[in-house]
Amino acid sequence: VDATVDLLTDVGYHRLTIESIAARAGVGKATVYRWWPTKARLVIESLSHRIEVTPVKTTGELRADVRALVDAAIELFTESPLGAAMPEMASDLDADPEAREQLLSFLGPARAGNLSLLYRAAGRTDLPHDVDADLLLDLICGTVLYRRLLGRRSSSAIADQLTEMIVGRHLPRTSEGVGPTA
Amino acid sequence: VDATVDLLTDVGYHRLTIESIAARAGVGKATVYRWWPTKARLVIESLSHRIEVTPVKTTGELRADVRALVDAAIELFTESPLGAAMPEMASDLDADPEAREQLLSFLGPARAGNLSLLYRAAGRTDLPHDVDADLLLDLICGTVLYRRLLGRRSSSAIADQLTEMIVGRHLPRTSEGVGPTA
Repeated sequence: VDATVDLLTDVGYHRLTIESIAARAGVGKATVYRWWPTKARLVIESLSHRIEVTPVKTTGELRADVRALVDAAIELFTESPLGAAMPEMASDLDADPEAREQLLSFLGPARAGNLSLLYRAAGRTDLPHDVDADLLLDLICGTVLYRRLLGRRSSSAIADQLTEMIVGRHLPRTSEGVGPTA
Repeated sequence: VDATVDLLTDVGYHRLTIESIAARAGVGKATVYRWWPTKARLVIESLSHRIEVTPVKTTGELRADVRALVDAAIELFTESPLGAAMPEMASDLDADPEAREQLLSFLGPARAGNLSLLYRAAGRTDLPHDVDADLLLDLICGTVLYRRLLGRRSSSAIADQLTEMIVGRHLPRTSEGVGPTA
């Protein structure tokens, strides 16, 4: 498990092999396969022992809370080995429903906490009472992840724009500090 | 090139090897490497010969145009081998700026056309004159892509909600037809 996270950080999900993990851990390949039939399951379980994915703490103020959600997404997809591995697992997860289930359980408590934060805002009538909080979280994480795929940084100006789009219901404007090519 | 797209469709980016492509094409590995030093560059060039990425055609009506952008993103990330390969290339693109540049050039004309559609809407004052069209496109593609990573379908109800968020500046609501677990 430790060997997996170390190697994942060094070579990335794509280049990670069960052979190299077994070698680093000083065990046989068969031993690894006995416990984790697929690379995706081994990686998700290893990350879940090493990383904690925690929900954003609410301040009780919508704008600050949404901004914290955006910042957490930026951190996940730029700093964390989990955020780096997630997109690369795409087809492995399609082929391995148990691994996807494991990933959803790992992310689950943080996601539930973040949903609760948005529904609490709805309870204060800061958001519509029937807000689709799930879709808002997907939108925040997805925008940050997609920009990373294209090699675009999500600066704090981007974080401001996403926050403003949700809190102020304003569309993002370039005059808020980012040009079209930012 | 044909061998690459065929194999990509069969096994996915992750499991695709230069060996298997060379074997399918009936050439030596060295020959492949001579022309394409990395797998990412070979895949992007092969896809660009096989697939056309076209901008959405404008209807002149904002709601229909934005809905068409969302539908195009859903099609890209659920139907196209390009959309399937993109997330999996994440770390290869980080390590290979030329491959990323090649991907951006491949996507470029479609993206430029879609930006033009949004700026035309801004010209009609249907969107703010200084709308950050780039960020809106990232938001549309990213939301769809992230949902796919989590194994969530982007139904037409989701497409409606994203469209309404941009056009009507309404936050997504669950009562628009999708529950929190959809």
